[in-house]
Amino acid sequence: MENVKKYHEGYFMPPTIDLSWAYKQHPDKAPTWCSVDLRDGNQALIIPMSLDEKIEFFKMLVQVGFKEIEVGFPAASETEYMFLRRLVEEDLIPDDVTVQVLTQAREHIIKKTFEALEGVKNAIVHVYNSTSLAQRQQVFRKDKEEIKQIAIEGAKLLKKLTEEAGANYRFEYSPESFTGTEPEYALEVCNAVLDVWQPTPDRKAIINIPVTVEMSMPHIYAMQVAYISQNLKYRDAVELSLHPHNDRGCGVADSELGILAGADRIEGTLFGNGERTGNADIVTIAMNMYVLGVDPGLDFSNLPDLVDLYEKVTRMRVHERQPYAGALVFAAFSGSHQDAIAKGMKWREEQDPDHWTVPYLPIDPHDVGREYEADVIRINSQSGKGGVAYIMEQKYGISMPKKMREDFGYCVKGVSDHKHKELLGDEIYQIFQDEYVNVSEPYKLIDFSLKKEVDGTRTGYVELEINGKPTVFKAKGNGRLDAISNAIQENTDVRYSNLIYSEHALEIGSTSRAMAYIGVTAPDGTITWGAGMDTDVMSASVMALFSAINRMKV
Amino acid sequence: MENVKKYHEGYFMPPTIDLSWAYKQHPDKAPTWCSVDLRDGNQALIIPMSLDEKIEFFKMLVQVGFKEIEVGFPAASETEYMFLRRLVEEDLIPDDVTVQVLTQAREHIIKKTFEALEGVKNAIVHVYNSTSLAQRQQVFRKDKEEIKQIAIEGAKLLKKLTEEAGANYRFEYSPESFTGTEPEYALEVCNAVLDVWQPTPDRKAIINIPVTVEMSMPHIYAMQVAYISQNLKYRDAVELSLHPHNDRGCGVADSELGILAGADRIEGTLFGNGERTGNADIVTIAMNMYVLGVDPGLDFSNLPDLVDLYEKVTRMRVHERQPYAGALVFAAFSGSHQDAIAKGMKWREEQDPDHWTVPYLPIDPHDVGREYEADVIRINSQSGKGGVAYIMEQKYGISMPKKMREDFGYCVKGVSDHKHKELLGDEIYQIFQDEYVNVSEPYKLIDFSLKKEVDGTRTGYVELEINGKPTVFKAKGNGRLDAISNAIQENTDVRYSNLIYSEHALEIGSTSRAMAYIGVTAPDGTITWGAGMDTDVMSASVMALFSAINRMKV
Repeated sequence: MENVKKYHEGYFMPPTIDLSWAYKQHPDKAPTWCSVDLRDGNQALIIPMSLDEKIEFFKMLVQVGFKEIEVGFPAASETEYMFLRRLVEEDLIPDDVTVQVLTQAREHIIKKTFEALEGVKNAIVHVYNSTSLAQRQQVFRKDKEEIKQIAIEGAKLLKKLTEEAGANYRFEYSPESFTGTEPEYALEVCNAVLDVWQPTPDRKAIINIPVTVEMSMPHIYAMQVAYISQNLKYRDAVELSLHPHNDRGCGVADSELGILAGADRIEGTLFGNGERTGNADIVTIAMNMYVLGVDPGLDFSNLPDLVDLYEKVTRMRVHERQPYAGALVFAAFSGSHQDAIAKGMKWREEQDPDHWTVPYLPIDPHDVGREYEADVIRINSQSGKGGVAYIMEQKYGISMPKKMREDFGYCVKGVSDHKHKELLGDEIYQIFQDEYVNVSEPYKLIDFSLKKEVDGTRTGYVELEINGKPTVFKAKGNGRLDAISNAIQENTDVRYSNLIYSEHALEIGSTSRAMAYIGVTAPDGTITWGAGMDTDVMSASVMALFSAINRMKV
Repeated sequence: MENVKKYHEGYFMPPTIDLSWAYKQHPDKAPTWCSVDLRDGNQALIIPMSLDEKIEFFKMLVQVGFKEIEVGFPAASETEYMFLRRLVEEDLIPDDVTVQVLTQAREHIIKKTFEALEGVKNAIVHVYNSTSLAQRQQVFRKDKEEIKQIAIEGAKLLKKLTEEAGANYRFEYSPESFTGTEPEYALEVCNAVLDVWQPTPDRKAIINIPVTVEMSMPHIYAMQVAYISQNLKYRDAVELSLHPHNDRGCGVADSELGILAGADRIEGTLFGNGERTGNADIVTIAMNMYVLGVDPGLDFSNLPDLVDLYEKVTRMRVHERQPYAGALVFAAFSGSHQDAIAKGMKWREEQDPDHWTVPYLPIDPHDVGREYEADVIRINSQSGKGGVAYIMEQKYGISMPKKMREDFGYCVKGVSDHKHKELLGDEIYQIFQDEYVNVSEPYKLIDFSLKKEVDGTRTGYVELEINGKPTVFKAKGNGRLDAISNAIQENTDVRYSNLIYSEHALEIGSTSRAMAYIGVTAPDGTITWGAGMDTDVMSASVMALFSAINRMKV
């Protein structure tokens, strides 16, 4: 692409590089989670949420377990003011939940913000200003010292007015556009703000260093976080917070590596909603911890319901491939994957292992409210015998012999390829019924009567129709099936050898039936399969034989 | 979530940990890109692509600049066989493009694969087997040595049959489920395969270590890649390839950190299509390099067309927030972001800097075929004066005074909030016309005639209608506008001071008109704005005054 010279590294490396974070394999405990769905998320919607929708979303966030929820800019927006007042007046903020409000550092706006907070038990008041080189130069046309003074004056005013109001709100400061800011300078500004606030371990300040725009690879951001974390003043009285966006598709990686590098807190949204490419997806970050055995402290055990509510109020869609939540994220269409999953599930049943290890499923779909049947093994022209057999067995109790599975797999694949569509369980079952079970043309079994001789053989007759014409054959053999098989081979052109047989009981509704499978090998070596279903196991077997014979290519 | 104990780290740390990759800021050159859209991508679709759709997609991949394209399993699928044959017969594979085919290591399948490749100039034949602990245990029920033998036997057979066929195909081997495999063991298997193939720098083998399922954080994968890269035999005769999936939302990070750690090649798909959560998104990885000034060697200068074609043939949707490609990824709805973008764009025009540094836009949207107007500044109830003013100026040439922008910004925000919807440019322009321009109730200008006196003042009359009633006032002032303003204040109840005035020429279609803006300050201090539009600049000014007067709250 020709314009590549127009670009360069717009971020800044920290003065010292520390990689000790990289020796940690994953976070060992959950960070503090702060949902910014109602702020960053809402602000990025084509149609922002209505007041009622916001209330519904807030309730959902509380239910999921968020203890910190940013509710917007109450002093700058009438809707956001009313939203916060409704939360207070309808008593929707549990005692252990802190609401976070944004404010500009201007006296009348801070006062209006406090007015909006009247009656709130726990609140974080969040001020910020842009500190990046680009914004200093292009937007504010101020130098570093002037921009730092904006932060300091804001911090002072917030502190003063809070004291005057007798409130004990916690404070948060963000050097906005941190990723375009020189880390030393961002640190200087944050420390200057902390000098004003003088935070203590029992009333920690929050320093939030946002990936306002993702500008570097995630390990570079982790180095920046490590530098800030190690050089912040009052470190034991500060919660270091991250707020990553996703412009480079690495918002989750930024968050995770940033936690290793010293961050205590993550601001993000459900499903990564938020401006442009969105904010870091808290569902993914939390579930990524869960899958490594670390409790995230958030409850996503019913993701499908969360997805539904989210899609309703945001009018956005959760993508089919969104980790943990998307419609297709547990789906296996390919034959080899289906086969491995089926075997893995079977092994799991047999061995009852301590840990989840099923191939191709990073997590037990049940743990996020998904179903194996609808969500995992899905059948189209890419699928193979394993998946089809799994569905037949799990959903319909049909357990055909191994070799027959292959035959049926090709049959289903052919139908899917021909129809150019995915096949659901009931369609697959119907194909099985139509193609294999109780096939009665041209040879139709009517009845049989075989009695046991003294030598143990069976003799008698078999009554059938051939192309609709009633016929009776004498029959003799080592067993009933053998006798009937002999009778057919002796009296017709049908020839085969090496009869493969299996059967099992089958519960359908309240009726117990027998299911039998027979494979016959034609003189050219090809095997043809048939199945019989009947309340009587012997009849099922004979019908399976007739099905196989009828399906042979003559 | 209660089941957290069910999970543990299912991956394995390499025996030695090397972090030298972490000191690199980003890849310094593009890797070899291999598209697996027609394999992993297609295999994960609810409705796989038809033959014609595959052909169309293949052509697009070639046009984008892919030099290696995996086309599937020609020997295992009739459709994929036909697809490859059509590519050959219609001469759709350029000389510098290599097609990659998957095969199982069985004689008749390899032979059928070679048959499908008849007439192909450059091909990679790709064999793989699962090497993970879970698959050895659960699926194959074989030990490490037996699984390694499968790989070795496959490599031998492939080599032998290739030599017998006199072909010079390149070979690729993947220890499938690498992320669930002990790195030492994966290395052992790969080296055993390489011992069979004896690759040379002029005919390199490809060793592909897939993130079949994402199981660890991305820096752990980078450590695994570094270990393999540093310990592979025949290293200068091997291309080390990665094939990350996205189960933890880190497929891009895996790819990027993996390149730093020694990988030479990336297998991925456009927009991250692929099984479950998808494959690593090559668009994002490539554009991430581009934004750091490294030419990816792929052409994404017209992403919207690629998105259209992709959506048509895959029946999947590119999400609104998909990096670089999504509909909303350059959108700014919030006032402060719009303001900063508008100022940044202006600064860019003034300063003509070497590099792209506009705030909140990680890339110039034009570079991927997007438009500022439709894609960047978007107006809803979250938006402010900056964005609205930007649209009015860029799209309609309306450049109102700074203070008036704020007034109009609130006006537009109010309409959007009330209508609960996003407003498009034409709607915003219409609001401006309806609210501010040539407002003529109750005071309507009919005509005026003012002549210059010797002392430089103007005297004459102004003819108007008040609530439809014709009226004439005598007028006198320092200029024409002043005279008319005086006449109104002397003869009516209207009172104001501190008249703010600006005007500019305006091209609308082929007509050149004048646009004038006037702000008047009422006795209570509030400023009311009006605008006038006319072919004559003097008339436009007077109409602006009448608009302002008519808009004052009496």
